[in-house]
Formats: sequence, C-alpha cells, structure tokens
Amino acid sequence: MDKTKSAKALRTLLESYASLNHPPTSIEYLNSPPTPLEFHQIISRNRPVIIRNAMTDWPAYTTNKWTPSYLSSKMGEMEVMVAETPKGNADSIVTHEGAEYFVKPHTTPHPFITFLSLLQSATTHPSPSTVLYAQSQDSNLTSEYLPLSQDIPPTIPWASISLSQQLPDAINIWIGNHHSVSSLHKDPYQNLYGVILGTKVFYLVSPIGVAGVRERRVRSGTYVKRGNVFDIVPDPVSSLNQEGEGGEGEEDGMITWPSISLDEYFSLPESERSTPVEDISDTDPWKWTKLSTPIKVEVKAGEMLYLPALWYHQVAQRADEDEGVCVAVNYWYDMDFSGPFVSMVNYVRDMTEVVMNS
Amino acid sequence: MDKTKSAKALRTLLESYASLNHPPTSIEYLNSPPTPLEFHQIISRNRPVIIRNAMTDWPAYTTNKWTPSYLSSKMGEMEVMVAETPKGNADSIVTHEGAEYFVKPHTTPHPFITFLSLLQSATTHPSPSTVLYAQSQDSNLTSEYLPLSQDIPPTIPWASISLSQQLPDAINIWIGNHHSVSSLHKDPYQNLYGVILGTKVFYLVSPIGVAGVRERRVRSGTYVKRGNVFDIVPDPVSSLNQEGEGGEGEEDGMITWPSISLDEYFSLPESERSTPVEDISDTDPWKWTKLSTPIKVEVKAGEMLYLPALWYHQVAQRADEDEGVCVAVNYWYDMDFSGPFVSMVNYVRDMTEVVMNS
Repeated sequence: MDKTKSAKALRTLLESYASLNHPPTSIEYLNSPPTPLEFHQIISRNRPVIIRNAMTDWPAYTTNKWTPSYLSSKMGEMEVMVAETPKGNADSIVTHEGAEYFVKPHTTPHPFITFLSLLQSATTHPSPSTVLYAQSQDSNLTSEYLPLSQDIPPTIPWASISLSQQLPDAINIWIGNHHSVSSLHKDPYQNLYGVILGTKVFYLVSPIGVAGVRERRVRSGTYVKRGNVFDIVPDPVSSLNQEGEGGEGEEDGMITWPSISLDEYFSLPESERSTPVEDISDTDPWKWTKLSTPIKVEVKAGEMLYLPALWYHQVAQRADEDEGVCVAVNYWYDMDFSGPFVSMVNYVRDMTEVVMNS
Repeated sequence: MDKTKSAKALRTLLESYASLNHPPTSIEYLNSPPTPLEFHQIISRNRPVIIRNAMTDWPAYTTNKWTPSYLSSKMGEMEVMVAETPKGNADSIVTHEGAEYFVKPHTTPHPFITFLSLLQSATTHPSPSTVLYAQSQDSNLTSEYLPLSQDIPPTIPWASISLSQQLPDAINIWIGNHHSVSSLHKDPYQNLYGVILGTKVFYLVSPIGVAGVRERRVRSGTYVKRGNVFDIVPDPVSSLNQEGEGGEGEEDGMITWPSISLDEYFSLPESERSTPVEDISDTDPWKWTKLSTPIKVEVKAGEMLYLPALWYHQVAQRADEDEGVCVAVNYWYDMDFSGPFVSMVNYVRDMTEVVMNS
C-alpha cells in the first residue's frame, strides 16, 4: 500500500517535471552568450542549454585553431596522460569473471605527438585493440597542456560574474574519437562544455530522473594493461562488512553508478519511446527511463553546452572528418550547495531506492 | 519497513537542508537593496532575507509618510473593504459546533476614516468584540487605495529586472494592529513585504518543512456577522462524495491548510526547542516542526522582507506606539514554475502525507 503510494508519488514527480518543462526532451538554443543575469536564470532553472557564438573570441577556435597540426606544434613531445581501455569504456560498469565492476581506465603517459598520431590512425580502424582518450579531468589544460591554455580564456566572463566572481574549479581538454564514450554519470559542477573539432553526443537525464538510470552499487576496479591484454584489478577494500550509505563516490572499494546505456535506449524505435507508460507495475524495463524523459543532443564544433550541476550525462563523440579527432574543452564551476536543491535531489534518490528495492 | 525508511528519508531531507543552510533558523540582513543579479541569486536559493534601506526613496516612507493623519487626508470617506473577525483570526482553522472549519473573514465596506478610527481605538482595548483588519490581498493598493498608490513605486526595479522585466501581479496594503494575525499559509508568489509603521512578526517554515506544519483537510466556511454575533457558514459543496487531490486551494468546500500555530511553538522554552529530536517514533507533537527549523523574525518599520515563493508564513503585528496602527505594503511577483523546484516541493508534500498517514 505504502509502496504503491510511494511509486505513484515518484511517477507524479517525473510527470509533473516533464509537464512544467515542456517539451521535456528538447534543449533550448541561444544564438549568443547570455548576460550574467540571464545565465543565472538558466542555472536556477537547472535545464541544459546550447549556446552558439560563445567561442568567437577564443584563439583556440579562430586564429590558433586547435587542429592536430597546431596542437602538435605547441605540445610536441610533452608527455600527457592517456586513458587506455579495451573498448573505449573508461569509468563504466563491466562484467568480469562473473562479477560486476566499475572500471577506471588504465593510464599511460605518452609523448603528445605519439598519442595524437595513434589516435588519428585508430579513427579509421574498425576495432583497435586499445582505445586511447585524453580525458584526465584534473584541470589538465592548466597543467599537462599548459602551452595551449593561452588559446582559451581563463574563465568565461558571464559565468564568473553570474557565480559571484567565481573562477573555474577546473578546465579540462578532451581529445578522442568515436571509439570512446563516457558512461552515464553526474558531477557536482556547473559545466560549460565547448566543442572545437568534431561533434559530442550528449545523452542527458535530469537529477530527479534517478529512477530511470538504475543506479547500482558495485565493486570498483581499474584496468591494468599487461602487453596488449587488459585485466581488471579490484580496488583495495578496507572493510567488506561496512555498509555504505548509497551515496556516490567510492568508499571501501564500492561505488554507486548508473547501470543503463542511454545509447541503447535511444536505439529503440521512436514509436516505442513515445508510448506512454500505462502502469508502473508492468514489466517494461525502460518504464522509469521513459518517465525521466532523457534528452539526446549533438553539440557541434563551435557550440557550447551548459550542462547543469547533477544532471546525468553519457557522452559519445565523432571525430572531425578531415582532422580525424574530436577536441573539446570544459569549464567546471562549483555549484551552490545552499538552498533546497541538493537536499531535495538526495531525497528523491533516497526515496527512489526505497521504491525500487521494496 | 518501508514506512520506517520513508520517515527516515524525510528526516534526512530536513536535517540535510538545515545543515546546508546554516544557521537554519536565522535570516540574513542586507544593508542596501541587491542588484538584479544578486536578487536572482537570493531567489534561486529560496531563502528569506531582510533588506534595509530599500524604501528610502518611497514617499510613503519619507516625504508623504503614511501616518494615520496623512492616510486619512488622502483617503477621507472613500470606502474600503475591512475583514471582521471575533478574534483576529481570518483565514484560519476554527472549531465550531464540534467540527473544524477553515474560516474566511466577514468583510464589510467602511469609510476609510471610520475604519481607521475604530482600529486605533481597538489598539488600546484589551479585547475588542470585533477585530478589524484591512487585508484585501486583491491588489487593493491600485484599486480601493488608489490615492495612495502615487506614494510607492509601481514596481521594485531590481526585482522586476531580476524577474525578466516582470511587473508585480499585485500590490497590497495592510492596516491592522496586534489583535489580528494571519495564520500559517503559503503563496505561489515571490513576495517583497515592506513595513511602513509598526512591526510585523513573521514565523517562517521552508517549503520542504511541510511535515512540521501538520496540514489538515477541513471544510471551508465564512464568518457572517449578525449584529455583534459571529456565525460560521459552511461554503457550498457541489459534491460531498468527490475526493479532492489534497492540494491547496478550495475544491468542493474543502481546503488543505496548516493546523499548527508557530506562535505556540515559539512559546516553548528555548531549551525545549533546541533539544535534538532523538527518535521520530516518539510522541513529541513538535518533533517534525523542530526538524523543519522554523524562523521567527521581526520586520521593523523601514525594513523589507523578501519572502520566497512557497514558504509557509504566519504573521503577527504590533502597532506603532505613537500612531496606534501597523501599516505595510507588499508586492507579489509571479514565481517561475519551470525547473525542478515546484515538482520537487509537491513531491515532498505527497511523501509527507504518505509518511504521516501510514
């Protein structure tokens, strides 16, 4: 009885959100950067937006265009950390010897020009044995890639002003091809993601759509490459008996992570995705995903995605046809934890767990 | 089992909110009006703020100060609608002949100077048989009180700019004394409430604190005054069988309304209010109210309260000692229903009902 009521309330939440943010599976485009106030209105609404003409004054996109030849001329033999995986699946759930693991990539330093040339050759290869992706996410643009940092602004002015003069917490460069994807996950950051070369395909679910992403708690591990063979090594566990709190992040070798692929969901025929969910007790494995109204959007070179804090995102990419790579840069700004938003999102997560496991 | 988990999650929500908005029972003061961007940051946080020096350019507060004599000189014999109640309890739950009713006030038109003089005499009377309160809430300042509207701005510039050039949906004037209170309720508006004479005492609970206000669904009715005797007349019911949805607002003669008095809560000794809630299964009737961390704040003449949309508020008042009345004016701006906030607040309400009634 309570279970039914709780499930019904969760369904009402998702349907109400979809109706108040109509159309829920679309994304708004701005033809020029917002003012700081307009950007704050967007942040406050916690809805993604694609901003055009936001990089027209970036050398990286204009005078010093980040083509492979320009990048190589600036970076040369400098070493960069590269993620290596067997199938382009860094930071995702993998079944290994009968058990499920959240697997982090093997990482190896490569001279930049070697990495770039390997990456470009792999772009035209149907199934390379090792998939390479520069995706350090540790503000690599201002460390490993320092020579390139002069080609982009140190902060995005309208974002900084909007966020009380905040500077970005990190600026990351991403260099890859279609062999790599980032599995569905979320970050506690306001994210501005600009594409320089190629196309990024974002699959998005709002923070309240946690029922649709089927989070699972699994052991965490790391790919280790020995020769050309990838093995998975579980992360150390300090106490297997300790029960985690179901939050994100790792504790004691366990991690909670979405288990679905939205690429798979969007491979369903449109007619099937748009069929209303009749009954939440039925067996359709995608019913909660449908109710959480995922968005699929391509962010093309020259476009910038505002990805609101705590939105689930899965990211695929396509290399630029001429240059053979996809290059993007993103700015992470700290989110505001005050107000009711964070507590409410965590509450929806807690209650989703109660509904799903009862 | 589910019930326990649901109650625990609700408690976690309230405790998490309190810890992320520390100290949860205090209110921030600004010494000057915010910029439009700063005001949007405040709105986004959905936390109340008191703004000082926000009315320094209002004739109503300076050159044409709204004292009773000035008000009388402008309004004269013009008729205004006045709420009349036996105990100053308009729009509140009252027990009548063994049943509970949400009772709206009896309203009578009075020549303004008659009303003001009756009100002033009642201020020094220990228990007047009829309590008067000008509280029409129908944008009365731009209709009944039109001669006064020139003394205040038609909109608050920083609020309008912040809210995409929105003009207020209503501007209301409130004239009363300590005999009147407004019972705990909420409005779907961003509310800017400026006090001109006297003091308003606001008791506030955030929208997620619905568990603490004990909403009840009761019949609605209206005070009718015959001679000096007040009777309660139930509102018409079109179908007694139809089950309402538990939302706010009236349907079929029923209404959902908070049943507690925060004045009573704040009459508890401080030591009792600050005792942590040990166990949500215990019998303390105030345990959920404590967890929802109510705020009590006095808004003095010259101060403006920003009361965020959907915050529960109970309002008492004290007349200016010399003038014998309390005069305030408030601006209601439409709230933004997009984004996740409204759906999440409704979800917390739905789940609170499940937890409380199971």
